[in-house]
Amino acid sequence: MKIDISKISTRAPKDFDKEKTKRLTQKYLDRLPELQNKLYAQGKFGYLIIIQGVDASGKDGVVKAVFSGVNPAGCSVTAWKAPTEEERKHDFLWRIHDQVPEKGMIKIFNRSHYEDVLVTRVEKWIDTKEANRRFKHINNFESLISECNNTIILKFYLHISKEEQLERLDERIKDPSKNWKYNPNDINVNNKWDAYMNAYDEVFDNCNQIPWIIVPSDQNWYKEHIIAKTLVESMESLKMTYPKITKK
Amino acid sequence: MKIDISKISTRAPKDFDKEKTKRLTQKYLDRLPELQNKLYAQGKFGYLIIIQGVDASGKDGVVKAVFSGVNPAGCSVTAWKAPTEEERKHDFLWRIHDQVPEKGMIKIFNRSHYEDVLVTRVEKWIDTKEANRRFKHINNFESLISECNNTIILKFYLHISKEEQLERLDERIKDPSKNWKYNPNDINVNNKWDAYMNAYDEVFDNCNQIPWIIVPSDQNWYKEHIIAKTLVESMESLKMTYPKITKK
Repeated sequence: MKIDISKISTRAPKDFDKEKTKRLTQKYLDRLPELQNKLYAQGKFGYLIIIQGVDASGKDGVVKAVFSGVNPAGCSVTAWKAPTEEERKHDFLWRIHDQVPEKGMIKIFNRSHYEDVLVTRVEKWIDTKEANRRFKHINNFESLISECNNTIILKFYLHISKEEQLERLDERIKDPSKNWKYNPNDINVNNKWDAYMNAYDEVFDNCNQIPWIIVPSDQNWYKEHIIAKTLVESMESLKMTYPKITKK
Repeated sequence: MKIDISKISTRAPKDFDKEKTKRLTQKYLDRLPELQNKLYAQGKFGYLIIIQGVDASGKDGVVKAVFSGVNPAGCSVTAWKAPTEEERKHDFLWRIHDQVPEKGMIKIFNRSHYEDVLVTRVEKWIDTKEANRRFKHINNFESLISECNNTIILKFYLHISKEEQLERLDERIKDPSKNWKYNPNDINVNNKWDAYMNAYDEVFDNCNQIPWIIVPSDQNWYKEHIIAKTLVESMESLKMTYPKITKK
């Protein structure tokens, strides 16, 4: 099924009440510490949580809102930036593979290997042939860690509208507590909106073997709800148990 | 084409003269430092040299004889042992990917990811389904580093006979300068000869996308000849050049 991201709403469905949803989200979040403890104790599965989205789509906010109650001994974040000189001397998945979660751990990727088929496409640093090659290797790589190490991969796309992005970028200038996030390049990103959406559509088409979860993200309360719900329901479906002491 | 390793000779063809061959090998080795220098200076390609073979097949000897004249600034060896506790919490290729060569470098693997489909099969730690899964991921992985980082992979199997192995293992006991290589488990390995050969045959069948080079290795001089020749001819075929200073 081809995804056309421009056809998907960036807002919560009409029947979602904000306050009621927030209370429900909190109930999910309350179940998370116990689930994480079991994940760690059992040491059978790992979680890789990929958070993608254009600038100002609220990636940092997700990490803070959903994972602040989680024990950092079993959870860490890697925020991906432009590759270093050493990283550029390796294949694009080399630095990514290094950071995948070991069994028992939750790893959050703030941005990810998908940047290597997003910004690189928009800026035309790679051609279609190279992009297709990378799609293939991304699928292989995700299949490797899920098949050979029981890594559960949750891929979230934070879906905001072009107008919402512009408004949030403006806020970075106006709000002193957000100034530090301001980058003079921000406005170019909004100008390249369509190119980014096309690049994302291609990613959804080509790398959906482990499915993308499109999260309407104009409203933070709805975004946080979807992510908390998806994560907790996924962990509960594993029916994890604490290992017992075995007498020998 | 199915490979049956037991049908392949472990000795040099009759028409190979030992002394003449050794002189020829030296000529290849003399060309290696300049080629390595170009590899490093150009920084376009990398070399991954995989050396596999049963115990006492002469893997350490190859590293010493073929690579001793090479600048260690551009060449390093990883000798793979049983995985550590941390490594066992990741997929089997995690520690391997970490050690692949960056562009411009030569990396020698003394043993490799293939141990994860060899000793594991012989000892029945994994079943056929898991082995097939690993074959697939090994092929994907080798394709990733060759397609996405210009890594040239040379895979050498050091082919000795069962009798030759037994003789060499005996020598480890008799020769004080080889005592340190002795392992009480050595003799079990010789007893499991057929199981190892079957496991290797499966590897050759399933992971020959980047082809294996079977090196008759009962005689060290012939083994070294084949490896030096293959490596030098491979590097020369790249037609590497030194980068020029570009005036801006």
